[in-house]
Amino acid sequence: MFKEQLRGLLPLYLVTDLSEYEGKSALHIVREALQGGVTMVQLREKKAQLRDTLQAGAAIRELCREHGVPFIVNDRVDVALLLDADGVHVGQDDLPAREARKLLGEGKIIGVSAGTMEEAEWAMEQGADYLGVGAVYATLTKGDAGAPIGTGLIAQIKERWPQVCMVGIGGIHPGNSKEVIAAGADGVAVVSAITRQADPKQAAQTLLRHMKETQ
Amino acid sequence: MFKEQLRGLLPLYLVTDLSEYEGKSALHIVREALQGGVTMVQLREKKAQLRDTLQAGAAIRELCREHGVPFIVNDRVDVALLLDADGVHVGQDDLPAREARKLLGEGKIIGVSAGTMEEAEWAMEQGADYLGVGAVYATLTKGDAGAPIGTGLIAQIKERWPQVCMVGIGGIHPGNSKEVIAAGADGVAVVSAITRQADPKQAAQTLLRHMKETQ
Repeated sequence: MFKEQLRGLLPLYLVTDLSEYEGKSALHIVREALQGGVTMVQLREKKAQLRDTLQAGAAIRELCREHGVPFIVNDRVDVALLLDADGVHVGQDDLPAREARKLLGEGKIIGVSAGTMEEAEWAMEQGADYLGVGAVYATLTKGDAGAPIGTGLIAQIKERWPQVCMVGIGGIHPGNSKEVIAAGADGVAVVSAITRQADPKQAAQTLLRHMKETQ
Repeated sequence: MFKEQLRGLLPLYLVTDLSEYEGKSALHIVREALQGGVTMVQLREKKAQLRDTLQAGAAIRELCREHGVPFIVNDRVDVALLLDADGVHVGQDDLPAREARKLLGEGKIIGVSAGTMEEAEWAMEQGADYLGVGAVYATLTKGDAGAPIGTGLIAQIKERWPQVCMVGIGGIHPGNSKEVIAAGADGVAVVSAITRQADPKQAAQTLLRHMKETQ
C-alpha cells in the first residue's frame, strides 16, 4: 500500500459495530454510508459471537468491494485473515503492528490508535500505515476512549512526521470536522456521526461537504 | 494429529493465565507444573496487553517444547500463529473450529469447550480434535463458566462418540478427579488446582496419582 494511495482513502472513515439502529441492520447502515461517500470501513465488534461476526463481516466486506472501499477489521488479525479484509486496525493493547504484519503481509493496511506522542512513536516504529489519533472530542461510543485530547496531538504528529497518514477519531461531527483536517489529519473516523443518524447517506455527504470547505 | 496420540497428551492439562501467585511468575509456575508431569499447557490470558502475552507466551512455549508437551493458546488464532503454538482452544463465542483450522492447518490441535450436548455436537461437526467439557464442578477461576454440570455430560458424550478425546474442566482437584476419568474423560484440565498451590509440582503429581488409582 503506497502512502499517497492510502491517504486518498482516509477522508471519511466509518467505524461500525454490528448493532442495529432504529430497525436498520449494520449492513443496511454501511450500504447507505457507502452511498454517501464513505472512503474506508472498519468493523469494530467486541460483543458478538465470532461466528456471527464472520458472517456479517463477509457481507460488509462484499459491499465495500462493490464500492471499491477498503474493509478493515479491528483488533483480530485472525478474523481479518478469514474475511480476506484489506487490513486491521489495532489499539495499543492489541497485537503490535509489526506482529500483525507478519501474518497479513506487506500488501495490507495496518492502522494503529494513538492517544499520546509516545503511543504515536511506538506505532510509527512498528510500521503503522496510518494512525488513528484520539479521542479528539468527548465520545460516548467507546467507553475506554479516555479524556478528549483536542487537535493538538494531530498537529504535533504532523509536524514530527509530515508524510504520516492520519485520521482523527472521537466525537467528530460536521461542526468540528474542519478543525481536525486543519490540524493536519487526512480524514476523520466516525461512528455515531453516521451510524446513529436517521439518514446515514446524508450524514456522510454532510461530513464530506463540511471538510471540503476547509481546503 | 492422530486421535490416539492426542489422547495420551490429555491426562493432566494445565490452563494458566500470566498472573503471579505468591511471588512466583506464571513461567515459574508452569516450569514446576511440567516437572510434576503436566501433559499439556494452555495459555488463557484475557487481560494483559497482547505484546506482553506474546513475550511471556514465547517463554512458556519454549518450556513446553523442552518437556515435549504441547502448548495451546486460548481463543486467539492469530496469537497461536505468532507463537507457533501447537494449537488453539476455542469457546463457543470464539472462532469456530473449522475457521480456526483454515488458518492453522491440519497438523495443529484444536480443542473446543462444550457445556451442553448441543455445544458438543456443534464442536464435533466443526472438527474439534478434543472437547473441554464443563464446568464440571463449581469454580471461581472463570467468572463466566456457568453453573456446574457434574460428570453426566461427559458420560453422555462418551456414549455418543466412544472415540472422542475429552477433558473435564471446572473445579477439579485430587479428591474429585477420579470421578471425571471414571465418567469417560481422558484427562482433567485444571487451573487453580495447580497454579494456586504452594507447590505446583507436587500438586501435579498428586493429581496424576489420584487419577491412576481409578484405572
